[in-house]
Amino acid sequence: MIISMRPHATREEIDHVCERIAEFGYKVHSIEGEERVVIGVVGIGDVTICLESLEATPGVERAMRISAPYKFVSKEFRKGRSIIKVNGCEIGGGEFVMMAGPCSVESEKQIMETAEGVAAAGARILRGGAFKPRTSPYDFQGMELEGLKLLRKAKQRTGLGIITEIMSDRDVEMVAEYTDCMQVGARNMQNFALLKSLGGCGRPVLLKRGMSSTIKELLMSAEYIVAHGNPNVILCERGIRTFETATRNTCDIAAVPVLNELTHLPVILDPSHATGKRSLIPALSRAAVAIGADGLIVEVHPCPEKAFSDGAQSLTLADFARMMSELKPYIRLWKEARARELAAV
Amino acid sequence: MIISMRPHATREEIDHVCERIAEFGYKVHSIEGEERVVIGVVGIGDVTICLESLEATPGVERAMRISAPYKFVSKEFRKGRSIIKVNGCEIGGGEFVMMAGPCSVESEKQIMETAEGVAAAGARILRGGAFKPRTSPYDFQGMELEGLKLLRKAKQRTGLGIITEIMSDRDVEMVAEYTDCMQVGARNMQNFALLKSLGGCGRPVLLKRGMSSTIKELLMSAEYIVAHGNPNVILCERGIRTFETATRNTCDIAAVPVLNELTHLPVILDPSHATGKRSLIPALSRAAVAIGADGLIVEVHPCPEKAFSDGAQSLTLADFARMMSELKPYIRLWKEARARELAAV
Amino acid sequence: MIISMRPHATREEIDHVCERIAEFGYKVHSIEGEERVVIGVVGIGDVTICLESLEATPGVERAMRISAPYKFVSKEFRKGRSIIKVNGCEIGGGEFVMMAGPCSVESEKQIMETAEGVAAAGARILRGGAFKPRTSPYDFQGMELEGLKLLRKAKQRTGLGIITEIMSDRDVEMVAEYTDCMQVGARNMQNFALLKSLGGCGRPVLLKRGMSSTIKELLMSAEYIVAHGNPNVILCERGIRTFETATRNTCDIAAVPVLNELTHLPVILDPSHATGKRSLIPALSRAAVAIGADGLIVEVHPCPEKAFSDGAQSLTLADFARMMSELKPYIRLWKEARARELAAV
Amino acid sequence: MIISMRPHATREEIDHVCERIAEFGYKVHSIEGEERVVIGVVGIGDVTICLESLEATPGVERAMRISAPYKFVSKEFRKGRSIIKVNGCEIGGGEFVMMAGPCSVESEKQIMETAEGVAAAGARILRGGAFKPRTSPYDFQGMELEGLKLLRKAKQRTGLGIITEIMSDRDVEMVAEYTDCMQVGARNMQNFALLKSLGGCGRPVLLKRGMSSTIKELLMSAEYIVAHGNPNVILCERGIRTFETATRNTCDIAAVPVLNELTHLPVILDPSHATGKRSLIPALSRAAVAIGADGLIVEVHPCPEKAFSDGAQSLTLADFARMMSELKPYIRLWKEARARELAAV
Repeated sequence: MIISMRPHATREEIDHVCERIAEFGYKVHSIEGEERVVIGVVGIGDVTICLESLEATPGVERAMRISAPYKFVSKEFRKGRSIIKVNGCEIGGGEFVMMAGPCSVESEKQIMETAEGVAAAGARILRGGAFKPRTSPYDFQGMELEGLKLLRKAKQRTGLGIITEIMSDRDVEMVAEYTDCMQVGARNMQNFALLKSLGGCGRPVLLKRGMSSTIKELLMSAEYIVAHGNPNVILCERGIRTFETATRNTCDIAAVPVLNELTHLPVILDPSHATGKRSLIPALSRAAVAIGADGLIVEVHPCPEKAFSDGAQSLTLADFARMMSELKPYIRLWKEARARELAAV
Repeated sequence: MIISMRPHATREEIDHVCERIAEFGYKVHSIEGEERVVIGVVGIGDVTICLESLEATPGVERAMRISAPYKFVSKEFRKGRSIIKVNGCEIGGGEFVMMAGPCSVESEKQIMETAEGVAAAGARILRGGAFKPRTSPYDFQGMELEGLKLLRKAKQRTGLGIITEIMSDRDVEMVAEYTDCMQVGARNMQNFALLKSLGGCGRPVLLKRGMSSTIKELLMSAEYIVAHGNPNVILCERGIRTFETATRNTCDIAAVPVLNELTHLPVILDPSHATGKRSLIPALSRAAVAIGADGLIVEVHPCPEKAFSDGAQSLTLADFARMMSELKPYIRLWKEARARELAAV
Repeated sequence: MIISMRPHATREEIDHVCERIAEFGYKVHSIEGEERVVIGVVGIGDVTICLESLEATPGVERAMRISAPYKFVSKEFRKGRSIIKVNGCEIGGGEFVMMAGPCSVESEKQIMETAEGVAAAGARILRGGAFKPRTSPYDFQGMELEGLKLLRKAKQRTGLGIITEIMSDRDVEMVAEYTDCMQVGARNMQNFALLKSLGGCGRPVLLKRGMSSTIKELLMSAEYIVAHGNPNVILCERGIRTFETATRNTCDIAAVPVLNELTHLPVILDPSHATGKRSLIPALSRAAVAIGADGLIVEVHPCPEKAFSDGAQSLTLADFARMMSELKPYIRLWKEARARELAAV
Repeated sequence: MIISMRPHATREEIDHVCERIAEFGYKVHSIEGEERVVIGVVGIGDVTICLESLEATPGVERAMRISAPYKFVSKEFRKGRSIIKVNGCEIGGGEFVMMAGPCSVESEKQIMETAEGVAAAGARILRGGAFKPRTSPYDFQGMELEGLKLLRKAKQRTGLGIITEIMSDRDVEMVAEYTDCMQVGARNMQNFALLKSLGGCGRPVLLKRGMSSTIKELLMSAEYIVAHGNPNVILCERGIRTFETATRNTCDIAAVPVLNELTHLPVILDPSHATGKRSLIPALSRAAVAIGADGLIVEVHPCPEKAFSDGAQSLTLADFARMMSELKPYIRLWKEARARELAAV
């Protein structure tokens, strides 16, 4: 940690800061510049409390953290890549994993038709919402338990793994029973009560980046789950909120290699929410494969215009099959690169 | 609702859209322009599902909502201003209400000292967190039930109303028992499970704007609470996330008059989170009074550098007293303007 | 400057960085932490080149500037407030200065009627564009020289000072001849060729913040003008671009006190561009006075619906007169506070 | 254009709006809803002035444009893709074009070494700044004319085309004489005086997206150049400004397919400015090829740590050669897809 004092901080203020640092058990390295004093703080363990305290101390201009505030999720903690197993798929390993399905589970017919279609085209995991976070209280809120049961049925029929969203720490046990992976949506990325509950549950968690969350905050939320006992976290870039309105969100695709430098956790991309527009999804999916994401999660609906939610960004089954075929040569390059990387370790 | 077709939409596509609209029970007004067809949709009730369906229909370029997606919180539903009573204070009425207190409840001594100090300076409601949403799992997470008990004690001693944050739908009953107003933090503004629970509880709710939420989304979240049965919602602007890093957030102060045009609910401002910097709070508080907010919620700590959280943005008790005195003439102007407005209705 | 090395930087990399720092003539303070080495760099003069070089050097994780990158505009360089004189008005002094007028000069009748109206209501400076930065090449681009002549005529008639926008370094002499203050629009805040030209010209400059510019960048652009010879710079907050669409821009009102902490230059606020909506301007103007801005620049048009540009955010003459009257008690408080401040120095 | 009246607009207000529309020569289609009146406006030609006027008219809530505000750059105006020739390269055609070189021209040795290195690795166009837009007046401002002469020399030696930045409408002739393509930097995307001058010049223009500019605004700036006579415009996505600080900017990679839907102009991507970090450039470059950009512009320096600017985001010559080799299979897929597309037309 580095403490930058104000240009005209008094000797008393500087001494007081040094004493405070000592009280926390850290060592002080004071650097006297022409204009101001800068203090280096060295020590073991989390400096957050000390940092916050110093920021509030008279004479201090800024307190800057040098080391990362997360631990278990960092590359320092674990080199290479973690592999998270979901119904036999190894996410983060040598396989590019496609997750696909409707925004919401709407009926048995809809979910079965979709499951069979996406499985035939090469998806490995079926997505589908039973609890839906909707901006409006008047929108369809999901089939809840009934939806979970239909997802299980679809799994039995197709062998696909199941991923579905969880919205409350109350529902963790119930949702865990029916699914292979629990999705935390963007709006709940900092629902800390939920994150803690998921930490106490063995099921893999797909953690979506909040729409205005930094990459560091995403990692801190992952750290919550891991620190509470569940190491099986998959990260998901799904677009952030910016001033641009041509797309629903702005896909921060560079977050994929940034995360690969910072963490061992797998990173997938959601081109459906990132763009909000069906026609853009195949191009963005190619880019996601090329940049090295570990998989994709894509919205697919047998009849998007009759979807209860997110129809505009849903591919039809035919669209999805076409995209899967178009992605093949890119996935081949992806596999070669991944194999080289795993061999090099 | 207005549907704008693509420039080269076919006659079949246009007819199909018109049929879909009719299926939803709405009337169609087709306008043939030089370049494209635009379709006006007229009908009663919520158009969201129809809108989403049409957005996903071939040939449609855009579907635009004309009427507001919220109802109970709108000025159309109720003219004038709603008054929400919190421990005898009338928020939204003729009084400018000051809420103040520490970020976290840390000890009996700390909360009592603060409560007495802010009460003496003119605050009417004591804030203090017992459940803390912290970015890091390693930060202080709050005293929980113990903290709630201390808040009740502080109320008994000072007569101040109590506001505290609620983080999970699991805790609604417990928190409601100890407080006069339940605060939904920025990170939970779209925790819909929580919003629904608060709708079923009689206690007033202070709903903070999410850091990347639009004003419309804030109103939709308020609508959730009201539609589920609780009309006692107070809105709070607390800064939004932008590219600027000189302040912790960017205070969207114009949201106050914008909200006053759109809703009858009271609107307060949180200058502490909006700026993140103690020295900026008095100036921003003056602006909040002048622009017509219904109150302020401010972080105050007897010794900010020993605070467990948010010290850098906490006023000392002396700072707070000085600010209250400086605000007096502005609050006088506020009261005159409010009295004129209420008399004019 | 602080250099944070990567956790596993080699001894050679660390030594190389230290040598590079020495080559630049700075002193090195190395701090060995548990995880990484952090190097403090102390020296006189601008560190930018050294900082950029080190950022590109192997083993370096981050190079952080501690001291401000601007000099002449900083509070370190000059305590207190600079007063910039514009046609006899002292901006930054004991008077709150109102600038008002149409977006574009459109005709003699229009500009005269506006000038007389705003002067009667208490404005001291007339704004009006002769060169218009319009997003579309098909929009009205301004009356150019003819417009400048009409502004001069309006000055002769009313005694108001004149402020108008300059869009190219080619036009500096011509525009300077006709006006008392040259406005740099948000889109040109980093048009460095223009800033340099304005540095060589004696006329005061009103520098508007770019719509995605940080406060630091605004100060750097002011530094350009001052470093090139012209100390007469007035800063203007006019709203920044964010995700919120309820207003044209998001007014970063806290930028006013932030700037007052960092610079001695005056700061005014433009509520018209900040909101884009006539009905919000009076409330935001009250807030601007209360927060301590040195003045306002407001769009006023005799008949907004016939304006060639920005009609929706233009006040009528009657609106403006009403607002001026409403602002009076706030300006009285402003003057008292300013007088106390100036007396205290 | 669609005019949405306020819910309680009076009959007089509605009639007045209809009269205003008629005055502009457009036809009115009035739709009476339950809550409000919506008016469709049909006519030929640019509606901007009418739209702005109506927005400022009493009783109007919103005026929404339906048709695009640009013409010559739109897909409506010209199907397919425009090919822009730069020193024999066909940008937008069947070749993926790599532009590479240093941020600034610094010396003959530096530019020659770079030119030869990037040419050997497969670049077709040499980038290098002679006029530098620097945030600080104290930073290196470029070699100006001397730099242009060195670029010409590098072209003579290597046969590479030359692209360099232009910062003032004053310099158009001089810069055009020395270069094959004139680059408009992000900060000048809305320097309309410069855009108009470039419209009067035959040279191709690379127009970079402003850091807070929407895709629509980028197209409007292109329209300026084309409408003023120069159809040779290449667009460039280079990252936008958001709250995320892990990268210098946030690469809006989806802008590439969005632009391909809206315009016939070629679109390239700048991974150097988009990320600001050397290590991320190869991954983002792969993504740019996969998503269908027409080329890349990349910063390369023989010794980044001695670069006068942007060293941290510059590749070494060896990095660049490695990346070019890694991109080969992706470019092969790109060429196959492009060939299929061109054959299909």
